[in-house]
Amino acid sequence: MKDQLRTHIEKIVPLSDEEFEHISSFFIYKKYKKHQFLIQEGDAVPYNYFVLKGLLKLVYTNDAGKEHIVGFAMEDWWETDFQAYYKETKASLSLECVEDTEVLCLNLDDYRKLCREFPKLEHFFLEKAYMGFISAQQRIISSMTDGIKERYKQLIEKYPSLIQRVPKSLLAAYLGVSRETLSRLSV
Amino acid sequence: MKDQLRTHIEKIVPLSDEEFEHISSFFIYKKYKKHQFLIQEGDAVPYNYFVLKGLLKLVYTNDAGKEHIVGFAMEDWWETDFQAYYKETKASLSLECVEDTEVLCLNLDDYRKLCREFPKLEHFFLEKAYMGFISAQQRIISSMTDGIKERYKQLIEKYPSLIQRVPKSLLAAYLGVSRETLSRLSV
Repeated sequence: MKDQLRTHIEKIVPLSDEEFEHISSFFIYKKYKKHQFLIQEGDAVPYNYFVLKGLLKLVYTNDAGKEHIVGFAMEDWWETDFQAYYKETKASLSLECVEDTEVLCLNLDDYRKLCREFPKLEHFFLEKAYMGFISAQQRIISSMTDGIKERYKQLIEKYPSLIQRVPKSLLAAYLGVSRETLSRLSV
Repeated sequence: MKDQLRTHIEKIVPLSDEEFEHISSFFIYKKYKKHQFLIQEGDAVPYNYFVLKGLLKLVYTNDAGKEHIVGFAMEDWWETDFQAYYKETKASLSLECVEDTEVLCLNLDDYRKLCREFPKLEHFFLEKAYMGFISAQQRIISSMTDGIKERYKQLIEKYPSLIQRVPKSLLAAYLGVSRETLSRLSV
């Protein structure tokens, strides 16, 4: 299953067998059932997760107890509460399985060690970080677009395979509309 | 004025005089007047801008012609239309001076060259990219927080010196409320 990680990294930087052997030894394999939590709000966040298989939702629960979906993650995506992971604070988000999920976990010390040892891995993470930043900024811009229908359409165009797998109630929570509003949209 | 860039980079990675001399030679100095554009929607985006002095607004104009503020940038911040810069597409945002502004410009080829030559500069940009990503994600989460008053309060706490300088009408456009709504809030 670590081959999947290698293929993923090699889309950006090539690795020798020895390099990948060493790099992959830092990752821990974990398996979760649907509805299980990888991160719970208030806990420490030791890991960044590379998704091998399955589907996750990153959730923010506001003071009124309402759940909002910050993002989804499926095969070959990285996900965690990045602020808590990177700044070593408590989680303000939770990360929960929408499907049975398998992940490879990387802790912060090992991440830093790997970056020091392999500048090309730092290059890989920089590309990923930029893509993450651009996606987050596009999400902010999308929320400024007039019309939920247009926003829904953008989402389908951007992540066609994701949309197939995410229950409509969660898509509604991601878009910030009610389930009823979403089902009235024919895109 | 390039000393400011050195101090900024050295908060994350140390540089020798020779290294900085070489690195700084890739940056171009430019000066703009209030209301001038660094980036106009639809144009190519050759540069990432390091702000030496002044204040910028990054603006998204939706189909109905309404202006939304994606972000601000002042001294020691980096700003551009990152999607257009990084993916070499046309700008979907504009970047405009709120105050007279001086910047150091870095084009994408030079950025890539510098990263290849100086792995520690890649480390610097990775730190910056993570911070940018975390800030963008915090902005998404903040929009899920109930109550504009709470969101305004968070903004003041996070960027006290910025808030002093940004006209109230622009703060309203950033928060997505009318100028009148904003002035009714006493935080």
